[in-house]
Amino acid sequence: HSSAVASKLIETARELVYPRGKGIYATDETPEAIAVVLHDAADEDVKQKQWTEDEERDRRRRWREAAYNAIPSEYISGVILFSETLLDFHLAPLLSDRGIIVGIRANGELRPLPNSPEEFLVQGQDNLLRDLQAARAAGARFSKWRAPIACTATGLPTEAGLDAHAETLAQYAAVSQEAGLVPVIEPDVEFKEDADLARSVEVHEWIIARIYARCRAHGVLLEGTLLKPSFPQPGLKHASRETVTAEQIALATATVIARSVPSAVAGVVFLSGGLAPSIATSYLAAVNALVNAAPPESPFSRLPPLSFSFGRALQGDAARHWVHGDDDKVKDTFEKWSRACWLAAQGKQA
Amino acid sequence: HSSAVASKLIETARELVYPRGKGIYATDETPEAIAVVLHDAADEDVKQKQWTEDEERDRRRRWREAAYNAIPSEYISGVILFSETLLDFHLAPLLSDRGIIVGIRANGELRPLPNSPEEFLVQGQDNLLRDLQAARAAGARFSKWRAPIACTATGLPTEAGLDAHAETLAQYAAVSQEAGLVPVIEPDVEFKEDADLARSVEVHEWIIARIYARCRAHGVLLEGTLLKPSFPQPGLKHASRETVTAEQIALATATVIARSVPSAVAGVVFLSGGLAPSIATSYLAAVNALVNAAPPESPFSRLPPLSFSFGRALQGDAARHWVHGDDDKVKDTFEKWSRACWLAAQGKQA
Amino acid sequence: HSSAVASKLIETARELVYPRGKGIYATDETPEAIAVVLHDAADEDVKQKQWTEDEERDRRRRWREAAYNAIPSEYISGVILFSETLLDFHLAPLLSDRGIIVGIRANGELRPLPNSPEEFLVQGQDNLLRDLQAARAAGARFSKWRAPIACTATGLPTEAGLDAHAETLAQYAAVSQEAGLVPVIEPDVEFKEDADLARSVEVHEWIIARIYARCRAHGVLLEGTLLKPSFPQPGLKHASRETVTAEQIALATATVIARSVPSAVAGVVFLSGGLAPSIATSYLAAVNALVNAAPPESPFSRLPPLSFSFGRALQGDAARHWVHGDDDKVKDTFEKWSRACWLAAQGKQA
Amino acid sequence: HSSAVASKLIETARELVYPRGKGIYATDETPEAIAVVLHDAADEDVKQKQWTEDEERDRRRRWREAAYNAIPSEYISGVILFSETLLDFHLAPLLSDRGIIVGIRANGELRPLPNSPEEFLVQGQDNLLRDLQAARAAGARFSKWRAPIACTATGLPTEAGLDAHAETLAQYAAVSQEAGLVPVIEPDVEFKEDADLARSVEVHEWIIARIYARCRAHGVLLEGTLLKPSFPQPGLKHASRETVTAEQIALATATVIARSVPSAVAGVVFLSGGLAPSIATSYLAAVNALVNAAPPESPFSRLPPLSFSFGRALQGDAARHWVHGDDDKVKDTFEKWSRACWLAAQGKQA
Repeated sequence: HSSAVASKLIETARELVYPRGKGIYATDETPEAIAVVLHDAADEDVKQKQWTEDEERDRRRRWREAAYNAIPSEYISGVILFSETLLDFHLAPLLSDRGIIVGIRANGELRPLPNSPEEFLVQGQDNLLRDLQAARAAGARFSKWRAPIACTATGLPTEAGLDAHAETLAQYAAVSQEAGLVPVIEPDVEFKEDADLARSVEVHEWIIARIYARCRAHGVLLEGTLLKPSFPQPGLKHASRETVTAEQIALATATVIARSVPSAVAGVVFLSGGLAPSIATSYLAAVNALVNAAPPESPFSRLPPLSFSFGRALQGDAARHWVHGDDDKVKDTFEKWSRACWLAAQGKQA
Repeated sequence: HSSAVASKLIETARELVYPRGKGIYATDETPEAIAVVLHDAADEDVKQKQWTEDEERDRRRRWREAAYNAIPSEYISGVILFSETLLDFHLAPLLSDRGIIVGIRANGELRPLPNSPEEFLVQGQDNLLRDLQAARAAGARFSKWRAPIACTATGLPTEAGLDAHAETLAQYAAVSQEAGLVPVIEPDVEFKEDADLARSVEVHEWIIARIYARCRAHGVLLEGTLLKPSFPQPGLKHASRETVTAEQIALATATVIARSVPSAVAGVVFLSGGLAPSIATSYLAAVNALVNAAPPESPFSRLPPLSFSFGRALQGDAARHWVHGDDDKVKDTFEKWSRACWLAAQGKQA
Repeated sequence: HSSAVASKLIETARELVYPRGKGIYATDETPEAIAVVLHDAADEDVKQKQWTEDEERDRRRRWREAAYNAIPSEYISGVILFSETLLDFHLAPLLSDRGIIVGIRANGELRPLPNSPEEFLVQGQDNLLRDLQAARAAGARFSKWRAPIACTATGLPTEAGLDAHAETLAQYAAVSQEAGLVPVIEPDVEFKEDADLARSVEVHEWIIARIYARCRAHGVLLEGTLLKPSFPQPGLKHASRETVTAEQIALATATVIARSVPSAVAGVVFLSGGLAPSIATSYLAAVNALVNAAPPESPFSRLPPLSFSFGRALQGDAARHWVHGDDDKVKDTFEKWSRACWLAAQGKQA
Repeated sequence: HSSAVASKLIETARELVYPRGKGIYATDETPEAIAVVLHDAADEDVKQKQWTEDEERDRRRRWREAAYNAIPSEYISGVILFSETLLDFHLAPLLSDRGIIVGIRANGELRPLPNSPEEFLVQGQDNLLRDLQAARAAGARFSKWRAPIACTATGLPTEAGLDAHAETLAQYAAVSQEAGLVPVIEPDVEFKEDADLARSVEVHEWIIARIYARCRAHGVLLEGTLLKPSFPQPGLKHASRETVTAEQIALATATVIARSVPSAVAGVVFLSGGLAPSIATSYLAAVNALVNAAPPESPFSRLPPLSFSFGRALQGDAARHWVHGDDDKVKDTFEKWSRACWLAAQGKQA
């Protein structure tokens, strides 16, 4: 990396997580996923309505505009956009004019791993540099690649699956930096199966450590990257799912980060995944409270900033107000949730 | 793999290299590369002609038809097609009706490796299964993926480059078998730089051994695969390039295969790359002569069949006759060259 | 390796497995293990006897002398000695004078793998070069290192265990060649647990393939090595143990060798481990019969020679005759068993 | 690890580097190396003296006693002993009674790596657990294993060398924890050749990152370990050796630690190796000054404590006073140097 490019990558990465408390709002769902959100938010009569493709597209654009206008820049440092929003709707200036950094979803669709069909690799490597350069030209300054990591009590993930994901994520990170975009590396360890918390911790450590091993091999500048991991947690099919506390999740999370993330990484922004907003926020608050309470000789006192890159957790209620045309409440809702996340990322309860 | 699919893959792989002497004709150049071949073969006045896109396309189709009609099935077991030839021109039956097995080029275009820009990774993983399934539906029974491996006296290939190629090739092989196509794995070690023969041998061993390590991880059925390697050879910028003998190449080649290719692999079909037809054929003859002369206790006596997957080496002269409309000479030329390769693959001189 | 040393290593390795049928007699038990064999072979009154240390030592020496005099050199190419036999009893000439190649046990005692206490690493790396050089000075021309590989239906071996064994075996092989001794690399996959045949095959492929990957990294000359693997087989705690046939074992064995052993390796000599002599011999005969019947296009037709390095399987009965002073029957017994193994290594039944 | 053992390991590891400034005094030279130090310190007439083995031994013991009595426990947290000092001289109580933690040198002698004779592996794995358990019984609470890492501008270290060292160090660390001793993992990257600073940084990152990858595989509790690395620096044969500044070394050092040491590791104690005491101390001061000046968003603000494990740097002058019987000056010298290191480890100049 040229010195100037490297400095800019490092600066952007830090601005996404500093001052402490600031985090990322992920709005990179596919058009289909947005349609579902808006449908669910609508009243019964509106749900009946048949939308033309153009109407759907226009609605998506307006919903994104409304959301981006409503996001409070004192809490939110960056927003991740789907390619349509960035390249077709040209909404980047709405954000960047207010000091919010624009990101782009880089990963494509999933494909099953041959010979391990319950694991999924991620497509999108073809033409990745060209696509990311286009995103940068349209205003993006960071990108994100999500890899779903299977996790069962025994058997999954396979060694082949872990290796393939780590290699793909590291190649992505290197290409993203080549395009001048800070990579946000997202290993999303699934929690729908029967793993307990200890197994989830183990799988988190494996995949995160491998990612950085491959990043080193590919010359990724760690100081210009962020990690977007899941919270380690018991699977939905494991009994302890019902009884696990936010404090247990926090301890597991801090341990994973301490053991597998090099200090050089600019920051960690957790994903909310399928968690309810209040749950994701409570985990984030608990792990930051643990960090705040750690004595100087504890590794927890020297973790990178632990913030958020939530999607559903930030926009659930807002959509409901927006479909009813209540712009003030949209704004209030974003304000409320963003502030709650911002407090949690400092270890404070709302 | 279901038992039936596995059996079919194994059977096809064997038919591509047995009875000994039979080999593959590679006609998977891009349309642009074909245009160059035909242009070079033409007389000066024809070279002036401006072709429309449709005329070019029609000429490509007719040239392939002529070639496929002329290929002698007693020497040639399979032909590798570019996607246009298979999917748009529908030429598979021309070959399969005469007992020649149809293959498809699976790899896409190259992209530089970030942070090692003189190494190139291969695109084409996105939608690969879908593309190979379409090829199978159009008559293909095998596929091929070429990876260019940089090779200098010191420095290249990098560890990251080797690992990335091995992973990509193994994933490709697994997907190809999932689509019911025998993968022909092509690590093409470059010889345009300053490596000597020993270094070329070393790099060949590294990449080939890594490929099979990753194939194991991804559950590839080795018995249903072929390897398409380059011949180890000094680089164009190394003094020994001028003096190296076919016997030295043969010894180096047999050593590489013995040390890095598991016995389970159905066969090895060498690429000709930028070598003159007569040179490539002489190397093939020399290595098979070495095999023929090996005593039973020598590893060379137990190598898989060593045959060919030549392109330019098979079609150079034929194009010249074809542009002049001399179909008999086209046929003679293909006959002559195919037979020479077939003899070489048995260790006999033409 | 200097060219002369390399040639000698290759020559010795080949002499251990050619002409086909010849194999190795393993007599490298510890003094304690010999004492048990001789005790078990004795009559009740002799069993009562208290032996002094010197008497024990003398008895060991005489038993080894008797055995080495009795071993038929037309069937047995090499014998593996424990260090005491080579360095203190100086019995190498007994063998080498009759054209039998002398080997030395190189591995030391086991130690549990920290954090996986049911796996065991092998000691003996300290001072290994010096010890092997001493063995060579005393007449040894090859050496052997055994690594026990845990194998359960799930869980064992661990990745760490596999990697550590592969690294240790490869370092041993490199040191052995440095000392001028052909390494016989012995991965002994255990069969006392609940793995089925497919799992045993998988574990065999993993460990063998990793061994050769590490051998490549350490510059081991594969042509001057032998592999001494176990036969893949169901574990004692798996139901199919009772019903598995020699033909199934043979197919599994040939598949493992074809997929994981490079052609360059001079030969494979199976261990008998805890198998009854007749069972081990029947497996060896079956796998060689499979090889004999394989058509040229089958990988099984190009496997390295598959022979034996049996211990208990060769000496069980002989000890009983020897303790009764019946030297003729000792000779007959060795003759009979050696010949049976020799036939089996050619795929013939006794 | 049982929870109690784990807690104790973590506690001991922290006590070796906290409160900030405290560090380790390495006195684990072999008897031969001590003899050289004392010989060099003596006057010409004493140098002529012939010492009996018993006299030498007695002198060693008395020198160690004097040194251990003189070491100020407000600056020195731990001392590394050679086995003779711990097990034969029984000097542990001299230290532990004053609150100084006793360590044991665990590594044995070097052996050349086969096929890369300028790289050296470390012996001492045989009987390691037993030896470390004996050390613990004699009062040790931590141990140390040094691995010399070759480093040239190109060529060294080899991949095989790096892998072998990382595996050995990780196995050692696991065994040390099993024996109840905190492992101090010492990768000592050599600086006698032609590497520049950037190459030294690269090699430091490679070996340190690999060590932690293997530690993860072997289940090492990182929170109960310390790292003892060299300072990255240009080689003696590289021109920049003459001009490199302490600030450049400091930046390189902090970068290496940030990129390759997980936060979980309890602390880093640099070795002085062949550096002059004042140089080693100036590097330590400079890197801690860099840490002190780092803003919160810099990775340097979240490094583990960076302290010292110096040997020669601490005892050079003291030996001269001791051979002249000047005990007060011995004490003064240790006091002065220990305090200088303690200040440097806080980023202060003496």
